[in-house]
Amino acid sequence: MKSLLDSLDSVLLMGPGPSTISPKVYEVMGKTTLGHMDPQFFSVMDGLKDSLRKVMQTHNEATITISGTGTAGMEACLVNLIEPGDSMLVIANGYFGARMQEMASRLGAVVSTLEFPWGSPVDVEAVKKELNSKSYRIVGMVHAETSTGVRNPIEQIGPLVRSMGAFFLVDAVTSLGGIEIKPDEWGIDAMYSCSQKCLGCPSGLSPVTFSSRAMEKIVNRKTKVPNFYLDMTLLMKYWNGSPRVYHHTAPANMYYALYRALELIQEEGVQAVYQRHLDAHRYLVEGLEKMGLSMLVEAPHRLPMLNTVKIPEGVEDAAVRKELRSSYKIEIGAGLGSLAGKIWRIGLMGHTARRENVDIFLKALARILRR
Amino acid sequence: MKSLLDSLDSVLLMGPGPSTISPKVYEVMGKTTLGHMDPQFFSVMDGLKDSLRKVMQTHNEATITISGTGTAGMEACLVNLIEPGDSMLVIANGYFGARMQEMASRLGAVVSTLEFPWGSPVDVEAVKKELNSKSYRIVGMVHAETSTGVRNPIEQIGPLVRSMGAFFLVDAVTSLGGIEIKPDEWGIDAMYSCSQKCLGCPSGLSPVTFSSRAMEKIVNRKTKVPNFYLDMTLLMKYWNGSPRVYHHTAPANMYYALYRALELIQEEGVQAVYQRHLDAHRYLVEGLEKMGLSMLVEAPHRLPMLNTVKIPEGVEDAAVRKELRSSYKIEIGAGLGSLAGKIWRIGLMGHTARRENVDIFLKALARILRR
Repeated sequence: MKSLLDSLDSVLLMGPGPSTISPKVYEVMGKTTLGHMDPQFFSVMDGLKDSLRKVMQTHNEATITISGTGTAGMEACLVNLIEPGDSMLVIANGYFGARMQEMASRLGAVVSTLEFPWGSPVDVEAVKKELNSKSYRIVGMVHAETSTGVRNPIEQIGPLVRSMGAFFLVDAVTSLGGIEIKPDEWGIDAMYSCSQKCLGCPSGLSPVTFSSRAMEKIVNRKTKVPNFYLDMTLLMKYWNGSPRVYHHTAPANMYYALYRALELIQEEGVQAVYQRHLDAHRYLVEGLEKMGLSMLVEAPHRLPMLNTVKIPEGVEDAAVRKELRSSYKIEIGAGLGSLAGKIWRIGLMGHTARRENVDIFLKALARILRR
Repeated sequence: MKSLLDSLDSVLLMGPGPSTISPKVYEVMGKTTLGHMDPQFFSVMDGLKDSLRKVMQTHNEATITISGTGTAGMEACLVNLIEPGDSMLVIANGYFGARMQEMASRLGAVVSTLEFPWGSPVDVEAVKKELNSKSYRIVGMVHAETSTGVRNPIEQIGPLVRSMGAFFLVDAVTSLGGIEIKPDEWGIDAMYSCSQKCLGCPSGLSPVTFSSRAMEKIVNRKTKVPNFYLDMTLLMKYWNGSPRVYHHTAPANMYYALYRALELIQEEGVQAVYQRHLDAHRYLVEGLEKMGLSMLVEAPHRLPMLNTVKIPEGVEDAAVRKELRSSYKIEIGAGLGSLAGKIWRIGLMGHTARRENVDIFLKALARILRR
């Protein structure tokens, strides 16, 4: 029987994620499924925990992967930390900050939002002022704003939040595996990421980590977590229990893929992986600027893995992306929200972050733009 | 580098799921990931929707897959249907009915439970009596109780629930793809399943379907769904929208696997697949009884895909399962709750449901039990 699956394109993924996957990761996806209570599978889970701690640079015991995408990871961090009526400050300068605000509100938090312009980093002084003026139970923000390409100064804000006694929640969906992030040193209490960006694994899993003080808050909640699937106390009984207690049927083949992807990062070295992202980013920016294009974000605040470039006047956004996809089999991302039609988002994440991929992309773009 | 992944056993999965996967499904798991907003990927999603409707035997427009396991599917159905204070009746005769009760309570439903003994089917007359005595907004139950091997008479209860004007929620985690289930004819308003049992795909996805009256309730909720990740109105904008609206980064490779697994079922024919499950089941029961073992559930109520057999006196439960796993690379399931140590749960699901697998298992068990 002829199947659509047999005619799928092989696309160079240079959008906001998923990123291009190494053949070494695809290779293990088809390994024989093991039962979710199989002793050998528990070893896979133990290995995953170890690798996650190394790549996430944390000693947190509560470091596991959620069986869902990054959005499920955001949900997991919020639903475990928030009790109805908790005051929460969301510091937002892009689409995903807004999403955090929306999600937290649905969970019954009393949410205030401190907003900053899209395309600029969060201003530390303004945050300090806000934190001094009002007391919050939870403060949340995004490290690497996928919608704008801005890196936020998490390392400066964490200590401020901690000094107020609040819990600090960080979205590391785009940053993890591409730039430095140090939950323990920076005072992060809950952090979530995803498998399909800088970690170089297909989408479907969301690594999360909770500090011991966050876990203490969760264990001592007055109300049960209103989400059985994402309840960290139940998940920890499955990931860490002795004996392990069944919670859900872990997606074994996705675990294999993440396991291998994390092995590859450790083989190369976490710092070397950051350097590769940075190198590919600089090479891309150089190439784009040579073509006369300019970046949205000022140099010091740019993310290496998510590059936002202004669409030149007179150039039709969708037509260019469509031609890249159809004639060159390259995916890049469109602008979101107020940046729709104004920027392209060029991802250099995980296995994609290599000069040869930048070359392929720049050549294609130059042809399309006739530059 | 030597990796644990290179030394994983290939296990014949005859537990309560995951089931053994066809090589044809593994094959497509490593296909190149496509972006979640790629037009070709949208075609994969459209194909998935069509196949799901066929295999789920429904015309419901709201038929999609949740990006999480069966437990996430249960969560999705409950969190969308329940508004705080809604009265819900959970009809329970096993572990998963109890889980439904727990989850619904966490979501703010006022839950009553009508309990029946583990190992027997739900009694229709008792349900009728309960529904006549009290009014409920939602009634939920499990079709195929994975913990006991009992098939519940959903087809008789659906019309009763509908006649009371309540919404009928059904857990088809173990039944879908193995025995007949007809949501439209049987008056089911919300139904969830999983990828890793009779559908023959690795774990990680949960097909769900909602009737138009259920979707109407959801769209007209007074409060937003307190779960952004599983909000059906947002998910439908991604699955069905024109244009499609980004919600989460769909796990592309898992979608490929489910797509192929559903193709295989349709190639064989849904009725033929049911027949294969039934045939393997009868063959297994015959073999077990020849060995002097007896089944927990009475013949008319047995599930073909989940066979509960009593552990003979003097036989040590864990030792037998351990030897099956280590010497024969066969997984079977242990009893849950009050049935722990008393029964084994032998799965014949999806690709596992074949006489040759039954032969392998019976031979191994006979050797271990010296029968």
